[in-house]
Amino acid sequence: MKIAIMGYGTVGSGVAEVLKTNHERIVANSMQDELELAKILDLREFPGDEYEQLVTHDFNDILNDPEIRIVVECMGGLRPAYDFVKSLLLAGKHVVTSNKELVAEKGFELLTTAAEKNVNFLFEASVGGGIPVIRPISQCLAANEIEEVAGILNGTTNFILAKMIDDGLSFEEALALASSLGYAEANPAADIEGTDACRKICILASLCFGSHVYPQSVSTEGITKITLADVECAKAIGGVIKLIASAKRTDDGKISVSVAPSVVRNACLLSGVNDVFNAVLVRGNVLGDAVFYGRGAGKLPTASAVVADVIDCAKHDRRRKLLGWGAPVDGFVADANDAKYSYLIRLKASFEDANKAFGSIEKVTYPGQSADETAFISDPMSRKELDALLGQFDSASAVRITDY
Amino acid sequence: MKIAIMGYGTVGSGVAEVLKTNHERIVANSMQDELELAKILDLREFPGDEYEQLVTHDFNDILNDPEIRIVVECMGGLRPAYDFVKSLLLAGKHVVTSNKELVAEKGFELLTTAAEKNVNFLFEASVGGGIPVIRPISQCLAANEIEEVAGILNGTTNFILAKMIDDGLSFEEALALASSLGYAEANPAADIEGTDACRKICILASLCFGSHVYPQSVSTEGITKITLADVECAKAIGGVIKLIASAKRTDDGKISVSVAPSVVRNACLLSGVNDVFNAVLVRGNVLGDAVFYGRGAGKLPTASAVVADVIDCAKHDRRRKLLGWGAPVDGFVADANDAKYSYLIRLKASFEDANKAFGSIEKVTYPGQSADETAFISDPMSRKELDALLGQFDSASAVRITDY
Repeated sequence: MKIAIMGYGTVGSGVAEVLKTNHERIVANSMQDELELAKILDLREFPGDEYEQLVTHDFNDILNDPEIRIVVECMGGLRPAYDFVKSLLLAGKHVVTSNKELVAEKGFELLTTAAEKNVNFLFEASVGGGIPVIRPISQCLAANEIEEVAGILNGTTNFILAKMIDDGLSFEEALALASSLGYAEANPAADIEGTDACRKICILASLCFGSHVYPQSVSTEGITKITLADVECAKAIGGVIKLIASAKRTDDGKISVSVAPSVVRNACLLSGVNDVFNAVLVRGNVLGDAVFYGRGAGKLPTASAVVADVIDCAKHDRRRKLLGWGAPVDGFVADANDAKYSYLIRLKASFEDANKAFGSIEKVTYPGQSADETAFISDPMSRKELDALLGQFDSASAVRITDY
Repeated sequence: MKIAIMGYGTVGSGVAEVLKTNHERIVANSMQDELELAKILDLREFPGDEYEQLVTHDFNDILNDPEIRIVVECMGGLRPAYDFVKSLLLAGKHVVTSNKELVAEKGFELLTTAAEKNVNFLFEASVGGGIPVIRPISQCLAANEIEEVAGILNGTTNFILAKMIDDGLSFEEALALASSLGYAEANPAADIEGTDACRKICILASLCFGSHVYPQSVSTEGITKITLADVECAKAIGGVIKLIASAKRTDDGKISVSVAPSVVRNACLLSGVNDVFNAVLVRGNVLGDAVFYGRGAGKLPTASAVVADVIDCAKHDRRRKLLGWGAPVDGFVADANDAKYSYLIRLKASFEDANKAFGSIEKVTYPGQSADETAFISDPMSRKELDALLGQFDSASAVRITDY
């Protein structure tokens, strides 16, 4: 059986490497006589590369080759990845992708096309890098009503926050360190503004709750406003600040989906996720909590997940894996401003004024706190209620408190 | 499709409960018109129980009912569970079990019988309770050479150690607390002596390395000799003592399998696994480390894993899941005494004498250390070398140091 790779960057070249390194095992598990890398699509040339002669600049070389049954898409971005993948599925080829933007924006449509053509569209590597996440969740889902799915889905921001927490670096210093170590891209906006985590929680929410969830329907807040004072204040209540992406059922049958910096108590499962690691927590009605944890990015771990999907496509060449979700439903995603959380709040105000505005509050003190600041834990309230109250004060910060 | 449950204790009654609670979802995911609980085998009567009229004392009522396609075995123990399961597989019925002793002792034989009869023998719940472990590992395995698998596989001992670490209870006090909370059985030997963890690592080792590994071939040490001094000494080097079950490839192509109390450094993934939680770490040659984490026991979590297997059997009624391993191979399990570890050692001796015996050592001091004791970290050495050196001293304790 022949395969092609589209996009010969970090992940794409990692896929070629894993296919070579573990070739014997992979072929055996695929139940094929051979799995042959036949074509690589990229705009660039790769002089001297082992697979130089497989490189083509013409997508049609892959689309029109009837021997290529499985195509790996590691181009990233929505265009032209979407057009290519759509054409390949329509041509009856299996597609494996690591492209979270593609799945988050076009997942339902591409899954539907794959079903119509009786081929597989698999995307394990799009969330959590090499950690098996999509398939274990499908398995949890089989016997459970999923109530919540949440996680630390972006390694760059987790690294930055860990450096602020453990080493007292400012956000800017930690970001510069992440850049110098290659953990942050030249333009880190998609990471630090939460966009990357947002795409991943959309994929998980679609899978867990059965209807496609679009990134634009998700309330997304990054970590750029988090200060060392917030970090110290969280420590004082026995917690750490993490960028948490979450989706949960609401009482009225909708789902509440958001990405936001959040205080995670030290006793909670996600508090110990350090460095560039990712973790996904699933809360089932009979299972309770299960967590899948590991390196959420990186060339070979991500390629490992892609290749596991390739093997699945090869094994199931003439039948489909049952994996997917339904059409988006208007109004299914609740207004995130309605979700109630307790907040860890810091105000330039006296305790009396804070107490008068917020009702019963739990006072917090932390090392380095400025004399004119009051810090406290609020009762659970909606973001709307919170913003109305915060508006009465100058210089206020509020970080939600979660129980993951 | 009809199913039967053998053994209506904690897990068996949990399976009945989960089948009822999430009935609609389970039937839909099974791709059956109906999944009906038809018989329950138990020696006891259950007057007043919802399923009272399904209870039978005669195994033949299940074996000879052609409409029963899937049988759940939650009896525990080797006999008569083994005879029943073997007969059921030979009769062409799928079997799902939560019985780790059965899988650890008879897994290869029962998997072979299942293959011959083209039915499934599934055992997700036998390791890690409700946490998906067996199937995610199969998935990791597809594209990776697994180098090591390790974990905290027994919740009772993890609870006891956590109470010693966090609350300063002695082993006896912590065991008594575990008993009073229902976390330890009336006879806790299988937990505290490491037998339970040993069975589970045998299952994981067989799955990861492809040949059946028997419990009797595994070096197994429980936690009964761990003292508060060991716990404090581990803290002093930035670690915690956990009961670690592990299996790893050796340089000569064998595998080294053991269960032993071990120091886990605070920076390592398994150090944060507290309370009765379980975690399994898989180290693949391209994946790196992935960890699966959650509640390793309990009625509904375990039942959730059993029911996920039931759904898989129903979905694959006429074809087999590819899950299993080969025959045991003589000499495949290396002598655990040959495996080299650094040890955290406490001796009634002067630093000079310890240094003379052990060569270059790294001195450790900890609060409450007695004046006539020397504590230190040794160079990596085999258990044989260690025991020869320890024999020169009175009152010595040594705990291996791991990197999980």
